[in-house]
Amino acid sequence: MLYTVIPAGGSGTRLWPLSRSQNPKFLLPLTGSEHSLLQATVNRLADLSDPDHQYVVTGTGHAAAVARQLPKLPEPNILVEPSPMDSAPAIALANAVIAERDPDAVVGAFAADHLIADRQVFTATVQRAMEAAADGLLMTIGITPTGPETGYGYLRRGRALPVGHLLAEFKEKPDHVAAVEYVSSGDYLWNAGMFVWRVDAFLAELARQRPAMHTAVRELAAHWDSPDREERLGRIWPTLERISIDYAVMEGAASAGKVGVVPGDFGWNDVGDFDTLGSVLPPSDDIGNVVIDTAGIEPAVVALDARRNVVVPASRRTVGVLGVDDLVVVDTPDALLVCPRDRAQDVKKLVDELKTSGRSDLT
Amino acid sequence: MLYTVIPAGGSGTRLWPLSRSQNPKFLLPLTGSEHSLLQATVNRLADLSDPDHQYVVTGTGHAAAVARQLPKLPEPNILVEPSPMDSAPAIALANAVIAERDPDAVVGAFAADHLIADRQVFTATVQRAMEAAADGLLMTIGITPTGPETGYGYLRRGRALPVGHLLAEFKEKPDHVAAVEYVSSGDYLWNAGMFVWRVDAFLAELARQRPAMHTAVRELAAHWDSPDREERLGRIWPTLERISIDYAVMEGAASAGKVGVVPGDFGWNDVGDFDTLGSVLPPSDDIGNVVIDTAGIEPAVVALDARRNVVVPASRRTVGVLGVDDLVVVDTPDALLVCPRDRAQDVKKLVDELKTSGRSDLT
Repeated sequence: MLYTVIPAGGSGTRLWPLSRSQNPKFLLPLTGSEHSLLQATVNRLADLSDPDHQYVVTGTGHAAAVARQLPKLPEPNILVEPSPMDSAPAIALANAVIAERDPDAVVGAFAADHLIADRQVFTATVQRAMEAAADGLLMTIGITPTGPETGYGYLRRGRALPVGHLLAEFKEKPDHVAAVEYVSSGDYLWNAGMFVWRVDAFLAELARQRPAMHTAVRELAAHWDSPDREERLGRIWPTLERISIDYAVMEGAASAGKVGVVPGDFGWNDVGDFDTLGSVLPPSDDIGNVVIDTAGIEPAVVALDARRNVVVPASRRTVGVLGVDDLVVVDTPDALLVCPRDRAQDVKKLVDELKTSGRSDLT
Repeated sequence: MLYTVIPAGGSGTRLWPLSRSQNPKFLLPLTGSEHSLLQATVNRLADLSDPDHQYVVTGTGHAAAVARQLPKLPEPNILVEPSPMDSAPAIALANAVIAERDPDAVVGAFAADHLIADRQVFTATVQRAMEAAADGLLMTIGITPTGPETGYGYLRRGRALPVGHLLAEFKEKPDHVAAVEYVSSGDYLWNAGMFVWRVDAFLAELARQRPAMHTAVRELAAHWDSPDREERLGRIWPTLERISIDYAVMEGAASAGKVGVVPGDFGWNDVGDFDTLGSVLPPSDDIGNVVIDTAGIEPAVVALDARRNVVVPASRRTVGVLGVDDLVVVDTPDALLVCPRDRAQDVKKLVDELKTSGRSDLT
């Protein structure tokens, strides 16, 4: 039985105005069903890990929503960070808490807000990673690239192992030229932030590379079920280093030859923006318009001479699109976005613009 | 003192979703100020006609709104049609009512939903038409064309008169080739539906060409202030011919050499669609975006890399436009429209689509 850790943070700025800091991406039904990305992530893990072995780490602002979206998740398995500290402290704390309960646990960490098309292949891939992790390697699942994406970090494969390969190197987001090179070489996979390891192996690397963080999370975990958990958490948490798990642990572990990678080819999508969302969800008509109906009002969209648009009618309003192609139209009760699909990445800039113009209330 | 008749009807379908059958174009503040097109029309006529001499003919569904938008207009001057009958019955009735009060009246008829930039030139033009009308001609004011528009009817000038010209011919909306020919010839003006005549001259032509309609409106007018006005109006009105003033009277009168025309060059716009509206209203920024803020919320629009868009934030929402040019975005509480400015004419088709798909409630 796999223990799973799901860091549920981040607001998904490029999905504004649907995604807000108060109602972030992972809580939204962007799965083509009524399930949120978080719910889909938990459901996808059901073959590997029952609710008793699933842990979600989230912020103070979203703990209640997480608890209601995941009614089967035991309350002690919802770990609430006093403040956002990036992924390393969150994952480290969850692992320390799991180690207290089961020192021999095998733990998998998976993002809360990604889409995966083929659940069977995903499950089989995780099981291969668990196999390799049994030897003490920190395993990553690398996504087989479908193109020279510059928006992701890359993983360079090293020598072959009985299962998968050693991870030779983590690569930062490349420029286009480098990305083309990576993909054509066949030696690179996308870093999707999916990890599988033995909890003792992970904590040992944490102790080696980030001793202060290790000491802190072990102390927190040791007293997790004691009456002064909140007092202790509130005192210690702010002293932790704000850093991602890649920088804090994985890159150093890779240099030490302690990281392995297995390829994942299960239709992965990070739902980074409305364009990628439109490309992964099924069209609503035969001319490629994708309607993401989060409000459940039909017919919410009337399209005339309009093709390949991504329309999100998330208010009680009818949306009429006439003679426009490849556009993103997101309609929410207090804000409306119109932009071309190929500018969907820049929605973040518009959100920055809103903040600087004193409209943070909308972000 | 000029008597003025303002037929206030039509729903302005191409301005959907802002314009609705229940809240039509002429009642909307599309003037770049807080005034509605109807209010702007009445204000524009103030130099020629005081409220006591102004008459508005409107439908049962809009009488109350007209009365409230024009508080100075005497109640007897608001003529309410029992049912829509196109422009001839409306204008004929108003003229008959005016004739009862002043048989020597000079009457001007002006649409309720057009924009005019230069009020002084407009006033002077109407005064020239009044001069010519004194001889008994039915005068039209023709707009000097600014381009080969195919959306308007044209007026062909005949021989010169002391003031203006005889009208040789009314021309239906032409195709592009004909329109180019018309404009290059210099003999053609746009038919803007502006008329000035002596009430007796008009009623004589009505009697000659549409005797039944003449008899009916004269009877209605003769008993207008009697207790049984409503009973009589309800009985007679449905028997009237549903026809425009051009077909009912003006074309026949032109053939008989009884119509004159003076050119108007005062920045006329019929506010036909959001594209023309965007071209006549002042831009809200230095990159040509036109924001028509009918709801009065600032800043309602946040534009980034967006040029020459016409944005109507008519709900309480913020509209973000990113990387789009020459687009129309109209945001109302229950419906949203997105279309290119060069497709603005086809909004009518979208409204038809809504009606056929059972969403007449939105039209």
